[in-house]
Amino acid sequence: MTLAAIDAARLIARIRELGRVGRDERGRLTRLAATDADKAGRDRLVAWMRAAGLEAHCDRVGNLFGVWRPEGVADAQPVVVGSHIDTVIDAGIYDGCAGALSGLEAIESLREAGFRPARPIATAAFTNEEGVRFAPDMLGSLVYAGGLMLDEALARKATDGERLGDALERIGYAGADEPGFLKPHAYVELHVEQGPVLDREGVAIGAVEGVQGISWRRATIEGAANHAGTTPMAMRRDAGLAAARVIAFLRDHVAASNAPSVATVGCLAFEPNAINVIPSRATFTIDLRDPDERRLERMEAALGAFLERVAAEENVSVAVEPLARFAPVAFDPAIVAAIEEAARRRGLSVKRMVSGAGHDAQMMARLCPAAMIFVPSVDGVSHSPKEFTREADLVAGANVLTDVVARLAGG
Amino acid sequence: MTLAAIDAARLIARIRELGRVGRDERGRLTRLAATDADKAGRDRLVAWMRAAGLEAHCDRVGNLFGVWRPEGVADAQPVVVGSHIDTVIDAGIYDGCAGALSGLEAIESLREAGFRPARPIATAAFTNEEGVRFAPDMLGSLVYAGGLMLDEALARKATDGERLGDALERIGYAGADEPGFLKPHAYVELHVEQGPVLDREGVAIGAVEGVQGISWRRATIEGAANHAGTTPMAMRRDAGLAAARVIAFLRDHVAASNAPSVATVGCLAFEPNAINVIPSRATFTIDLRDPDERRLERMEAALGAFLERVAAEENVSVAVEPLARFAPVAFDPAIVAAIEEAARRRGLSVKRMVSGAGHDAQMMARLCPAAMIFVPSVDGVSHSPKEFTREADLVAGANVLTDVVARLAGG
Repeated sequence: MTLAAIDAARLIARIRELGRVGRDERGRLTRLAATDADKAGRDRLVAWMRAAGLEAHCDRVGNLFGVWRPEGVADAQPVVVGSHIDTVIDAGIYDGCAGALSGLEAIESLREAGFRPARPIATAAFTNEEGVRFAPDMLGSLVYAGGLMLDEALARKATDGERLGDALERIGYAGADEPGFLKPHAYVELHVEQGPVLDREGVAIGAVEGVQGISWRRATIEGAANHAGTTPMAMRRDAGLAAARVIAFLRDHVAASNAPSVATVGCLAFEPNAINVIPSRATFTIDLRDPDERRLERMEAALGAFLERVAAEENVSVAVEPLARFAPVAFDPAIVAAIEEAARRRGLSVKRMVSGAGHDAQMMARLCPAAMIFVPSVDGVSHSPKEFTREADLVAGANVLTDVVARLAGG
Repeated sequence: MTLAAIDAARLIARIRELGRVGRDERGRLTRLAATDADKAGRDRLVAWMRAAGLEAHCDRVGNLFGVWRPEGVADAQPVVVGSHIDTVIDAGIYDGCAGALSGLEAIESLREAGFRPARPIATAAFTNEEGVRFAPDMLGSLVYAGGLMLDEALARKATDGERLGDALERIGYAGADEPGFLKPHAYVELHVEQGPVLDREGVAIGAVEGVQGISWRRATIEGAANHAGTTPMAMRRDAGLAAARVIAFLRDHVAASNAPSVATVGCLAFEPNAINVIPSRATFTIDLRDPDERRLERMEAALGAFLERVAAEENVSVAVEPLARFAPVAFDPAIVAAIEEAARRRGLSVKRMVSGAGHDAQMMARLCPAAMIFVPSVDGVSHSPKEFTREADLVAGANVLTDVVARLAGG
């Protein structure tokens, strides 16, 4: 197989152009799902799909597909690539868009290079991956993979109250195709890493073997408010101290495990939150992730045991509310190996890794063999206007994606 | 010396009556310094002083005095008793008022019992002890003791913007006497404990030997916001974790010291405060108190050393802003002994203790021998409508105060 090269300038120009769509009056990029800004981004993407000679499809939950259906192989199951083009608030230009536009670029480059696939190739942009305006995140691919009923998804209300179904109608992207209408042969998604590993280690390509399992909870600790000066330490029921002990415990537990587990307390609030009053209540979130389901379960159990211990030792009550729970997802070993091999053939450094964040690929993995390609995020920054991936890395990733698609599509 | 008894019914009735003055439309007691509610409380107190035959005085910072100046001893230095009648928001009826009204009751009872003192006796109600509307707390007694210039105090602005001087003029309590116009022979203050010790231990009277030293700081820890799923634990700069370690350290340090030190983190805020983002910033307050200045200094030093350690270990920066610092105050041993002896003579259990909270007595201790009498707060609750001291304890405390005043005033 010869190494076709993508049109680097075209890819970079499109990423930049899409990154100018949906700027607010302060210049911030905010293209939340099913908003006018999202419509403008979708319009641009669909125009590029059509200009590339692809069939543009929109399904009933707003997922977009650009399908290259060569004569003679039109009925074979397609290789699907893609990602999403919705963003967070005050976003960077790479998260999602790098993958959606690399998918388009891969197809276009292969067509232009005279590649003759044994099956159709489609590029997708899934609705509401970020989950900022509608819950849950990865909603479009979840519906597509049959994990959420279409009617239920369309009835979901935005943070501003609009139903998803109404929002899609309003922006003209409530399509006619049933979610799942394309039965994929395989799914490959390029994405910026959104973590520091590739950048720190100077590796060009991540061959993503799976997605971590995730466990989200909210804990509420109730103690008793008392005067900070007059209440001896031994008579306190300090909810804030109890919460601090939980945070310190999680770190110590993960450090002792010598595993790639991560634990984060991102939100914390004290009540009454006064300098001279012992906190009566501490409310905080707990985000546990692990690539291994057994280890994630053990981490959850260790947390539960520690919460009981802290409740007894600090004379406080602890209530825990589950917020989200996903088991780890393992990607297809053959596609992961193909990504590794493609990177090596292009002389690129490559590292097998597990995604710390959720992606549409984990939903598509329910339907077909799937895997992901990561490209480095400088300093691991994402969900920020400071998000940055070097052009050379974007181009290298798109080339690897193209090679893998060519291999999966036969020809 | 015979044991004069106070008029228990009168004392309790006055505490209740004053507790009805300054209720808002929701029934909450809020008599902030130099407000219309405070004026109504002051009017009531002054009327009671005058009815008891006392000279009512108001100094330029609004401190009220009711002076019994018996013939022949009018020029001797007076024994001063008292406390304050301003309250916090949604207060109980005992904090301050129990002391101010017990002082009045002590004088009235001694007069009625035919006691002939060797010096005048005065009861005081100091302005803005709570510090809710004007900073600092204990403002009136601080000015009276020469710790704050009168003009500076009168220029202080309320949380609602009104100058203290203007507020006192408006409510008619900008008096003519210079603060300090009465040179006290001694000062004794009865107050509810506002802590749980007497109640838990079933002790009736606290003979207060001093007031803890206090050290208030605000710490700001700066790390780096990163994705909770994609950032390995070892690459994190987690400001929230660093703050939790400080909270846990303070508790462990105090527990290991075997001293009556207390340490409290009452306020804490994370930024950006999102479930899946590592905190980039944690801001929190630190309240350290100790009856012993050397030990308080050692605790401050240990905190400083730990903050440096945590900054290095967690790769975060730590900034500390001092908010307040008061050295411990030692009360007069002879008056403390007199309180103990008076309690024992009345068959009351008594315990020497140190005040965890600040009180006007610590300012008056700059001018003259001073001490305090504590009565039990049920469950240690204060600054709350649930604040409660049993009638028997209020009466017992007022009797002890009366005995001590009689002893200090000679006769």
